[in-house]
Amino acid sequence: MATEINLDNIEDLAVGSAFLGTGGGGDPYLGSLLCREALAKYGPVRLVSLDDLKDEDSVYVAAAIGAPTVMIEKLFSVEDQHHAVSLLERYLDRPATAITSAEIGGCNSMMPVAYAAMRGLPLVDGDGMGRAFPELQMTSMNVAGIGCAPMTLADEHGNSLLIQANSGKKAELLARPVVAEMGASICMSCYPMTGAEARRGLVRDTISAAVAIGEAVRTRGDLSAIDRLVGALRQHAYYADAYRIFDGKITEIERTTQSGWVTGKCTIAAALGKGEAQLTFKNENLVVYVDGVLRCVVPDLITVVDQETGQAIPTERLAYGQRVSVIGCSAPAPLKTPAALEVMGPACFGLSEAYTPIRALMEGGK
Amino acid sequence: MATEINLDNIEDLAVGSAFLGTGGGGDPYLGSLLCREALAKYGPVRLVSLDDLKDEDSVYVAAAIGAPTVMIEKLFSVEDQHHAVSLLERYLDRPATAITSAEIGGCNSMMPVAYAAMRGLPLVDGDGMGRAFPELQMTSMNVAGIGCAPMTLADEHGNSLLIQANSGKKAELLARPVVAEMGASICMSCYPMTGAEARRGLVRDTISAAVAIGEAVRTRGDLSAIDRLVGALRQHAYYADAYRIFDGKITEIERTTQSGWVTGKCTIAAALGKGEAQLTFKNENLVVYVDGVLRCVVPDLITVVDQETGQAIPTERLAYGQRVSVIGCSAPAPLKTPAALEVMGPACFGLSEAYTPIRALMEGGK
Repeated sequence: MATEINLDNIEDLAVGSAFLGTGGGGDPYLGSLLCREALAKYGPVRLVSLDDLKDEDSVYVAAAIGAPTVMIEKLFSVEDQHHAVSLLERYLDRPATAITSAEIGGCNSMMPVAYAAMRGLPLVDGDGMGRAFPELQMTSMNVAGIGCAPMTLADEHGNSLLIQANSGKKAELLARPVVAEMGASICMSCYPMTGAEARRGLVRDTISAAVAIGEAVRTRGDLSAIDRLVGALRQHAYYADAYRIFDGKITEIERTTQSGWVTGKCTIAAALGKGEAQLTFKNENLVVYVDGVLRCVVPDLITVVDQETGQAIPTERLAYGQRVSVIGCSAPAPLKTPAALEVMGPACFGLSEAYTPIRALMEGGK
Repeated sequence: MATEINLDNIEDLAVGSAFLGTGGGGDPYLGSLLCREALAKYGPVRLVSLDDLKDEDSVYVAAAIGAPTVMIEKLFSVEDQHHAVSLLERYLDRPATAITSAEIGGCNSMMPVAYAAMRGLPLVDGDGMGRAFPELQMTSMNVAGIGCAPMTLADEHGNSLLIQANSGKKAELLARPVVAEMGASICMSCYPMTGAEARRGLVRDTISAAVAIGEAVRTRGDLSAIDRLVGALRQHAYYADAYRIFDGKITEIERTTQSGWVTGKCTIAAALGKGEAQLTFKNENLVVYVDGVLRCVVPDLITVVDQETGQAIPTERLAYGQRVSVIGCSAPAPLKTPAALEVMGPACFGLSEAYTPIRALMEGGK
């Protein structure tokens, strides 16, 4: 298990995080460039287990917020991130002793590494979901009763904002229009926690999990990349119910960008013989059917990967003709409690399906 | 000259502020109810001249922000105002020693009185414009190089926000969408100043000016209400170039509410004989022509008043058949410098007219 993030495993973290992004969360590749620069300049970042946090530690989230499509063109800097975190530190009058990711899936796995390197602080091995979700209230911290606010936003022009909201959902509603006005892709800090709260609120060991997943995908060997990927998932406590749900070729893709969401459907036809998979996404992949039978539904993870390389394909890059596999796996336990499903279950995305664990869906008929 | 605001002169302040609101700024009547309650509970508020502020005083703005049409239905409370000011005090680590109005015209003359009463603090005799304007950057403080940010917003549900922006215009752009999300009518604090900055940035003696104007309108006597009004304006250093521009009956009114603005035109026909006035407004009255000749243009003040009572009629209540007088007067000097005209001159409202002082327009042909 990784105990630090350095120049040798940052690529593994990026590849693993792309998988855990379930099609959304933004491409970690650009973030990994930022990390390389920071790690080269400031040295490796020590990973600290939730168990090793002191109760009185001050854990601050480093994160990006906005539209992944804009993030591609507008790069972040650790200085903007520092602007967001230091505004929150000043307001709370409590300097950071550790940095954490709010979202391991996608590009939000990267900024915390670069920022922890700059600050010379340890990075907590954990995050707020063990995957990616599109809204601020969709976190394990929120489910544990830890406030998203006070939260801060900072752009590259020196503008910043502090939001005190009485719910995570209200923080989301207040932050979103400002994010658009600040350029649709900015830095953020939210869910400030003590060490004791972090232990209670975060999903543990997800940074090292992403590194292990990325390492499995990237290490050549006898097995195919996809078999290595599924194998790595099966070895992990959270993601152990992992399945290669479907293999095929993308034959139809329908995608709309509206109100800051990328929504759509994708049809994948079997490479040999009959059969097709129907995937629905809203930023992240949400639900997949094979020949009309439900196979996986949010918060369990659904990621479309390249059949050759095993690398995740984000929803905005799904295209006709791609040879892909649909991989599904179980979500971390804290995302599946009744309270959690009210915050990030199928209904929160406008779906009518009830949550059913992937194992029951894949093995129920056997 | 008024040296305090109490239950006896609060109505004068409301009537005078309605005139200085030039058709916008919201109706002070509802605010005066809030003030009456606060003055009855906490006692009168001492007015302090800018000259009497100490350099190291901490002057905080108490204000409402939003759509006047919503303010009518959603009342403010001094507790929400305290939420906004105290967030700024906490951030700056500097407790308030005086309260000020940012905008004497309209309802923003009222909240500072109620809030100063609650805090037991003096109210500065001055404001940021000596009239009303619709956007946060349109103030004499901004022209004097004093920042609108850090500024705070607070709603009635306990949500609040602190904005650090690198210009008044950017503060406006960041605050406006949040105001809508917080219910379109909330409390604010902005332009935090030291006593020395207040002396440099505020338009002086405008609270006592509004009281004097309101008193003149309300005091019965031999002269008509409108003659008393114009007489009071002529006695004031700022508003001395005061004219009864036109008398007549409203024969056409065109009004659109769009993107948070009330824009429109109003035609007033002479009661006797020929002649008509054309008034254009965008929240506030901006420009008036009589028989095709320009008579007054922003930042000089244009207010439509009831011919009988001399009371101001806000743009959203102009209606066919009303017997009105159009009163125009000069704006305070700090609003008419070249630097000020770039922030609140005709071009800032999309007008093509160049600013020409009302005296030149009314007496130029003589």
